[in-house]
Amino acid sequence: MKIAIDVMGGDHAPKQPVLGAMKAVREFPDIEMILVGNEKEINEHLINNERISIVHTEEKILGTDEPVRAVRRKKNASLVLAAQLVKDGEADACISAGNTGALMAAGLFVVGRIDGIDRPALAPTLPTIDGGGFVLLDVGANSDAKPEHLVQYAIMGSIYAQKVRGIANPRVALLNIGSEEKKGNELTKQAYGLLKDAKINFTGNVEARDLLNGAADVVVTDGFTGNMVLKTIEGTAMSVFSMLKVGLMSNTKSKLAAAMLKPQFKAIKNQMDYSEYGGAGLFGLKAPVIKAHGSSDDHAIYNAIRQTRDMVNHQVVQNIVRLMETGKQE
Amino acid sequence: MKIAIDVMGGDHAPKQPVLGAMKAVREFPDIEMILVGNEKEINEHLINNERISIVHTEEKILGTDEPVRAVRRKKNASLVLAAQLVKDGEADACISAGNTGALMAAGLFVVGRIDGIDRPALAPTLPTIDGGGFVLLDVGANSDAKPEHLVQYAIMGSIYAQKVRGIANPRVALLNIGSEEKKGNELTKQAYGLLKDAKINFTGNVEARDLLNGAADVVVTDGFTGNMVLKTIEGTAMSVFSMLKVGLMSNTKSKLAAAMLKPQFKAIKNQMDYSEYGGAGLFGLKAPVIKAHGSSDDHAIYNAIRQTRDMVNHQVVQNIVRLMETGKQE
Repeated sequence: MKIAIDVMGGDHAPKQPVLGAMKAVREFPDIEMILVGNEKEINEHLINNERISIVHTEEKILGTDEPVRAVRRKKNASLVLAAQLVKDGEADACISAGNTGALMAAGLFVVGRIDGIDRPALAPTLPTIDGGGFVLLDVGANSDAKPEHLVQYAIMGSIYAQKVRGIANPRVALLNIGSEEKKGNELTKQAYGLLKDAKINFTGNVEARDLLNGAADVVVTDGFTGNMVLKTIEGTAMSVFSMLKVGLMSNTKSKLAAAMLKPQFKAIKNQMDYSEYGGAGLFGLKAPVIKAHGSSDDHAIYNAIRQTRDMVNHQVVQNIVRLMETGKQE
Repeated sequence: MKIAIDVMGGDHAPKQPVLGAMKAVREFPDIEMILVGNEKEINEHLINNERISIVHTEEKILGTDEPVRAVRRKKNASLVLAAQLVKDGEADACISAGNTGALMAAGLFVVGRIDGIDRPALAPTLPTIDGGGFVLLDVGANSDAKPEHLVQYAIMGSIYAQKVRGIANPRVALLNIGSEEKKGNELTKQAYGLLKDAKINFTGNVEARDLLNGAADVVVTDGFTGNMVLKTIEGTAMSVFSMLKVGLMSNTKSKLAAAMLKPQFKAIKNQMDYSEYGGAGLFGLKAPVIKAHGSSDDHAIYNAIRQTRDMVNHQVVQNIVRLMETGKQE
């Protein structure tokens, strides 16, 4: 299996993507990595070239670039070339920690949509306090969604949870304002009925308050709401940690106690760190396209590669294609 | 000033609402409280009847009641009677810790809307790490919103922040998926332009990640998104605290350290406890109607009464009415 990675994307490029790729080839004998980016910069960090090749380019997309325009104009940008390798059959999947919008655009324009999926969805796996995690989609590939899109998200998320996360019969829930069927805005009210009839294990509405309690394995919502929820979780966790930090440093006694609790605090931070589950999958494309977090270190990149490998090995895309075709035939 | 309170609403009714009312009359010589509920049950807790009167009723709305139907059918429910006292001019404002939907329905049908406000908005004040807090609206009075509704929310929130929270020129922001003007869903893209032209200090978009950092004093969004954000903040904070608890109790050393840090943990919990800012105001009605949190203790009820008193004293409703009239005349 060949996985292309845009090593010029993310806050710590190209060092951390390169280190992450080396870590992955050491761990998984069945993968080959194609590093797309500036060869000279890559070689400053690359000490292993077994099953690692480089596709050199000097162009790259910046975090500040307007996504669609950047993908159209910067044909030789590392992110675009990584997608092109997938399109050309040179790679089975691609990864980037760069501009999220540009990766979505490249996924859509270069890799292409699966027939029957109207819109791809961006789907991270988020932490729960029981350690199980849940797939949330869409978190912003599309701001607005129609009821039928939520059904497509549900099907894709369910297949992913089953194949990659190893959950036999994933509980799929609709993010909503209350637990009763009739609750919600126009979108969720209409989506509820469609989800009940879909070939998934639909468990009804889930409230935002219960997300981290492991109330569902897959949670569907429109991209705007999903983005709000994702960023609110991040922001709130960060705020609580920063308040803790201030509190713990307030006097000698608290500093001493804080030092004693270092392992516990670290464990909680790790538990909240959703890069452990890999990057956010862009579901609905003809091949796995994975967005690693912009702040990814080598371990987060490694996790994203592991996840990508799982998606390829467990034929997530092929399974979505099959279900879309079966669905249509009925 | 007379404030009516439905003492039969909330998880700890009628005891905590009664204790909170007694606390408030002790603190504020300018208020009279009208307790609406079961006289016998109230008298089990009431030890002071100076400036406290009772309106007896045996009917009440349950948390599980369907809001609109309950308000229409249970004409003598404590929550409905409290609103009726406002409507009849017997009280200047009313408070309930009971069924949120029912309070909104009673506010709308009994107290009535301000001319020019299409839809009332539910507006809690949420904590920030700098202690300043921000007003978020709407958090669910209406699931769907049109761009012009967000402008009305912005105006009401701004007046509230100015008059009650004492912020001279409140920074009003639009909750959105990114900071750039063109970002967002159809609703926020259209609302942005209208907000720029409104008579408020509009500071642009704010991302969910930055809410608790005090990025704005007033944040407007549709009720569905606002509800998600509110509940995600609550859920995430609770989850982090519960993970902390497990971690801190993991061994003898951590238990000892946790004991040493008790004051710091308590301070953080207090900082995250938004009942310190009072209840959630139902803005856009002809009088202040305040929803106290269902789990309110006497102190939270006291805070809601203090906030209600501030809204009456600073003529928040009259100011909204005036601005709506001026707006129309231009």
